Amino acid sequence: MPDFVALFTSVRKHSVYLCEPLETEDYVPQPVVYVSPAKWHLAHTTWFFEEFILKQFKSNYRVFNAKYSFLFNSYYNTVGDKLIRTDRGNLTRPSVAEIYNYRNYVDEKMCELLAYDEMPDQVGELLTLGLNHEQQHQELLLTDMKYILGHNPLFPVYKEGFSLVQTKNEDIGLLSIESGLYDIGFAGEGFCYDNELGRHKVFLEALEIQRELVTNDEFIDFINDDGYKRFDLWLDEGWQWVNQNNVNCPLYWHKIDDKWHNYTLSGLLPVEDEDILAHISYYEAQAYAQWRGMRLPTEFEWEVAADQLKWGQRWEWTSSAYAPYPNFKIAEGAIGEYNGKFMVNQMVLRGASASTSVGHSRKTYRNFFHPQYQWQLTGIRLAKS
Amino acid sequence: MPDFVALFTSVRKHSVYLCEPLETEDYVPQPVVYVSPAKWHLAHTTWFFEEFILKQFKSNYRVFNAKYSFLFNSYYNTVGDKLIRTDRGNLTRPSVAEIYNYRNYVDEKMCELLAYDEMPDQVGELLTLGLNHEQQHQELLLTDMKYILGHNPLFPVYKEGFSLVQTKNEDIGLLSIESGLYDIGFAGEGFCYDNELGRHKVFLEALEIQRELVTNDEFIDFINDDGYKRFDLWLDEGWQWVNQNNVNCPLYWHKIDDKWHNYTLSGLLPVEDEDILAHISYYEAQAYAQWRGMRLPTEFEWEVAADQLKWGQRWEWTSSAYAPYPNFKIAEGAIGEYNGKFMVNQMVLRGASASTSVGHSRKTYRNFFHPQYQWQLTGIRLAKS
Amino acid sequence: MPDFVALFTSVRKHSVYLCEPLETEDYVPQPVVYVSPAKWHLAHTTWFFEEFILKQFKSNYRVFNAKYSFLFNSYYNTVGDKLIRTDRGNLTRPSVAEIYNYRNYVDEKMCELLAYDEMPDQVGELLTLGLNHEQQHQELLLTDMKYILGHNPLFPVYKEGFSLVQTKNEDIGLLSIESGLYDIGFAGEGFCYDNELGRHKVFLEALEIQRELVTNDEFIDFINDDGYKRFDLWLDEGWQWVNQNNVNCPLYWHKIDDKWHNYTLSGLLPVEDEDILAHISYYEAQAYAQWRGMRLPTEFEWEVAADQLKWGQRWEWTSSAYAPYPNFKIAEGAIGEYNGKFMVNQMVLRGASASTSVGHSRKTYRNFFHPQYQWQLTGIRLAKS
Amino acid sequence: MPDFVALFTSVRKHSVYLCEPLETEDYVPQPVVYVSPAKWHLAHTTWFFEEFILKQFKSNYRVFNAKYSFLFNSYYNTVGDKLIRTDRGNLTRPSVAEIYNYRNYVDEKMCELLAYDEMPDQVGELLTLGLNHEQQHQELLLTDMKYILGHNPLFPVYKEGFSLVQTKNEDIGLLSIESGLYDIGFAGEGFCYDNELGRHKVFLEALEIQRELVTNDEFIDFINDDGYKRFDLWLDEGWQWVNQNNVNCPLYWHKIDDKWHNYTLSGLLPVEDEDILAHISYYEAQAYAQWRGMRLPTEFEWEVAADQLKWGQRWEWTSSAYAPYPNFKIAEGAIGEYNGKFMVNQMVLRGASASTSVGHSRKTYRNFFHPQYQWQLTGIRLAKS
Repeated sequence: MPDFVALFTSVRKHSVYLCEPLETEDYVPQPVVYVSPAKWHLAHTTWFFEEFILKQFKSNYRVFNAKYSFLFNSYYNTVGDKLIRTDRGNLTRPSVAEIYNYRNYVDEKMCELLAYDEMPDQVGELLTLGLNHEQQHQELLLTDMKYILGHNPLFPVYKEGFSLVQTKNEDIGLLSIESGLYDIGFAGEGFCYDNELGRHKVFLEALEIQRELVTNDEFIDFINDDGYKRFDLWLDEGWQWVNQNNVNCPLYWHKIDDKWHNYTLSGLLPVEDEDILAHISYYEAQAYAQWRGMRLPTEFEWEVAADQLKWGQRWEWTSSAYAPYPNFKIAEGAIGEYNGKFMVNQMVLRGASASTSVGHSRKTYRNFFHPQYQWQLTGIRLAKS
Repeated sequence: MPDFVALFTSVRKHSVYLCEPLETEDYVPQPVVYVSPAKWHLAHTTWFFEEFILKQFKSNYRVFNAKYSFLFNSYYNTVGDKLIRTDRGNLTRPSVAEIYNYRNYVDEKMCELLAYDEMPDQVGELLTLGLNHEQQHQELLLTDMKYILGHNPLFPVYKEGFSLVQTKNEDIGLLSIESGLYDIGFAGEGFCYDNELGRHKVFLEALEIQRELVTNDEFIDFINDDGYKRFDLWLDEGWQWVNQNNVNCPLYWHKIDDKWHNYTLSGLLPVEDEDILAHISYYEAQAYAQWRGMRLPTEFEWEVAADQLKWGQRWEWTSSAYAPYPNFKIAEGAIGEYNGKFMVNQMVLRGASASTSVGHSRKTYRNFFHPQYQWQLTGIRLAKS
Repeated sequence: MPDFVALFTSVRKHSVYLCEPLETEDYVPQPVVYVSPAKWHLAHTTWFFEEFILKQFKSNYRVFNAKYSFLFNSYYNTVGDKLIRTDRGNLTRPSVAEIYNYRNYVDEKMCELLAYDEMPDQVGELLTLGLNHEQQHQELLLTDMKYILGHNPLFPVYKEGFSLVQTKNEDIGLLSIESGLYDIGFAGEGFCYDNELGRHKVFLEALEIQRELVTNDEFIDFINDDGYKRFDLWLDEGWQWVNQNNVNCPLYWHKIDDKWHNYTLSGLLPVEDEDILAHISYYEAQAYAQWRGMRLPTEFEWEVAADQLKWGQRWEWTSSAYAPYPNFKIAEGAIGEYNGKFMVNQMVLRGASASTSVGHSRKTYRNFFHPQYQWQLTGIRLAKS
Repeated sequence: MPDFVALFTSVRKHSVYLCEPLETEDYVPQPVVYVSPAKWHLAHTTWFFEEFILKQFKSNYRVFNAKYSFLFNSYYNTVGDKLIRTDRGNLTRPSVAEIYNYRNYVDEKMCELLAYDEMPDQVGELLTLGLNHEQQHQELLLTDMKYILGHNPLFPVYKEGFSLVQTKNEDIGLLSIESGLYDIGFAGEGFCYDNELGRHKVFLEALEIQRELVTNDEFIDFINDDGYKRFDLWLDEGWQWVNQNNVNCPLYWHKIDDKWHNYTLSGLLPVEDEDILAHISYYEAQAYAQWRGMRLPTEFEWEVAADQLKWGQRWEWTSSAYAPYPNFKIAEGAIGEYNGKFMVNQMVLRGASASTSVGHSRKTYRNFFHPQYQWQLTGIRLAKS
């Protein structure tokens, strides 16, 4: 049996570690509907353990505060009424200190439960789900904080020297994949989300796929070639998005004295040509591919090629809309709402990013966002038939 | 060689025929952004022939009015500036009579060209595309007129006795499809759109699929079982759509004296229990499937099963997002914008409807709309793995 | 006793006369919420006579169509449910022809009633109100048609040679008004609206006021002096309005080949320097006054000076918000809603315009519009203390 | 010469005192565009002293942070670029602690300047303006905090026992004012705002005016008589406001177990029948007056009656739109933008409220807000002619 207490403690500590550089004020706002306050991330992940584990399996458990279920629920409508998302940034109470108290209380009770000899099997499964859920929120917490700090004209530093760029590209060659029938979806032991299950066969036509991701200088060529001004490169909705929002570069980029700079968690810095491109929407990824005379891979092509690719620096937009696998089953009850609710109007991203928590990536992982969002650490890998 | 003049004349006359029951006023408004005025449909389809055929291939052709290119263009941005869609309903001029003059002028010139012995081959191809384009708009013209008349509190009759219900269901059994590798996409002679090309293999798991479509009484059971009030049945965005728009029945349905009525092109009539259900969004189709413990078929499953299904009364929502086939190629120039521009955030519908023009349906046809739209003649066919 | 039949017929005919140049299509759209379709103006004014006179005083009167009360009501909520304004432009039925039938039917019945020897006194009063109401709508009908035609890129001509410019300015001198106590409000016989009643004393400080209105060339000086770009000249809300709508000239003005043109009911023509300025919002009037180091007059100053001014070419923005006179009384019932409902967030305009119906102006008349509207024939007269 | 240092210190300390009960998190959000964060209030009032006094008159003054001018400016566009208001709530930095440092720095420098023997006269005038400006923001700070805390489902207590209700009504009789010519506007020594100047004569008709303000139980009678459901009582825009926002009671009121409660700065408490009504919009005030068969007083009537009224518990809506007095002059430069910019679409409120800072009220004071706002401590006093 794994050391549940150690595992639990390690993941929980990481959330707190990510918040260490924050001022109390930074925990509060929700500048746009899809960015949540750090306060809320810390409380929501805690609520998961309280709601689905402690309340069910810990005898005589007393909830920390009965109203928190209402405040820190997310989409789990089966558990009480949910808070309307747009209000999150206006809730100054409970304070950050109270939320840390909440975390400590729940952590203590969880450790008691996990150390208990006769812990039911079900707790192990829910624990794994809860920890993966928290890891997912760890990445969101970081990208959400970047959004908040990166939209402040003071460009505050999150942490000196903190970087989401790991390595440079060495070679940008293409990998060939033969046509054939391949198996897609999770297999094996370990944890996966419900949307990865239902392993099934997919037939692929032959293709070539880039071994590495697109870099800043490559994308600057697109900008310099008027990529943002040529409607023929864009999807119709992408073109509307560009024009309605006056988009002319990736998120966080600013042209200062004719040189591209970008906000990073270490502050405002010049864009490094050879770094991997980040913070682009699906629309931008698609237009860039069009401009290069290539295309984005499907999520299936990506998964088949994954073992031979360098991946893990950016979430990679695929051309696949997020949809259920053939044998997808929605779990019973609130837990079941986990992923299936979102299977419309979103695109699948594969891989992982430099801000993904350690241990929270695998080649069958299916991330998904709306095509207009740039605030995640998203990048581009091209393919061609 | 086909009798191009006869073919052209026949399709062109059908558009005019569909407009015969209209008052001049009916041609004008654009009540919502996705519904276009009849005036615009008549002119836009005409402009296609003028722009892509007459201007290119008819010697000494003089355009009817140089400003019409601007007014009646659609998304074909490469040909001049496009009109912003939302303004269509405010353009009272050119008048309906002028637009009929425009049609007559272009028809005459087209017939001259088509009767010409040395007509270039390319004209034949563009003609076929133009006629299919017009047939597509014929269906839109009818559904758009239904929208306009059906939102008038006087519920005006389009044409007495006009019905979009053809036959009743006889049997609602399931057809079994075996797992295996199937060919998908258009093959053979005849016309198809660019998005049907790139015939390729798809592997399907075994499934069962309804031979016929869901009927009104079946959907009323869903309503009566509080289907519109149970968030667990809905996609997250579907649930928002239901609540923001207070949706509680298909479009055009009204409960009068405790009995469901619906607006039809023959006026306001009681809902017939055994008629095929129509005018539901993807969100409603998905929720209904969820409630029945089944699911919508993918577009591939549908195409494989098509020969053994009864289809053609309703456009059938599939669970497939609209995406390019593996070898999809965008044609050069303005014509190339035809379909590829829309490959995001839309769902594929398969089949055809009772308002589809004769000769404009085939089993590889890929229709597509945003998931919230109800105004097309859309229906539901269920499947299960 | 006045010849009611002749009076009624004359006013009613004028509405029809104004519509003679229109195509059927022109009667339909409502491009913005504050512009109503010609169809609706014709029907709404007719409905007034049916609702408040024929239904009350004509024995055995049969309404033309029971649903018209619902369709052509305005704000008179006490009479049935009102139509939501934004839908007016989508109601293609009743057709224009049917609305003319409605007018003819009501006109015939009204003439019968008015020719009747024992017509009750009350009918005379309501008739006068109804005719003034129709005259008000005649001006709106013209300005609304100008809006519709003037926003069509074809710039269609309403009527060749039709002009809303009567005379040129001769002299732009100032009139002095001494301080003192003056009487404000309607006195005498004749008709006036409820909002002009409650004659009362107002004390004015001494002032000077322009004898004539501001001309186009004077306003072009403001434009050339960057008047639209200097925030210090504008009210805070005016500055937001300028920037959100990118306003840089009066409505209907277009700079073509470096020369100002404007859409007129005779088509697109060069702006005549010495013509009286028209189609500016209150915000523009206020900013212009600020730029000139002067101010707009109050409605009281205007009324006191009126006999010595040249007025009647443009509705003149005053600095007075629309508010009740000290003894203002709201009449009982639906008629009572006439003016009082709008006494917030609107500014008073005094005078009359070249599109005001003959016999529909007097110096105590209080017109009112929201400060952002440009589509009426509005102009500027300046004052200073 | 007044003791400027003592005066300055006393006002400045009061702002800090008001913030003592706050958690750091409470200083951050801007839930709606018209509510500003406490952080911003504290910094903006400080910036005023730095910008208009220290930078001009203190030799060798070094600004605390050059970017603060950009961040904490308000409408004073002549001093650098202004921050767009909607972003205020997302700026987590500078932190609350840094803003207190800013205050301390400026306070220290100001005290040095004020203690200086040869302080220029102009400094005294600007100081007075700056302190009045700060007092205005003190009231806003309190009402904005109430908005933030009062929209939190936890209903946090600002301070136990803190009350904005001072005394109960004793008698609700009417005061008679005779018709005649009265002087309006500020006269005498002391401080006043520019909008109170230009003392001038106004003629009033005779009227009666309530000596005291409307109480909660009186307003509950209006609610119980379906006051919020009778469109005939409301201005047209008021009726839209009620329906679009589903308003059915004053702001902060909640019906719990069939008994009205309201959020107060001491938490959620039952509504006390005899307390003075608060937190109603102009629309509600007007509808209430209509229901009582009375009307709101004009600001001139109020000022004339003021000496004989009990006032100071609520800002009292008048029927006067906010407009310049006859001889109103906009001061030169940024200071001049103080009040004149807002003279459109706002209604004048007279009196003062239980949250107005001591020493910041006089009978000529002209407060102003948009008619839909409820979040200030607003009340109703009725009049009749």
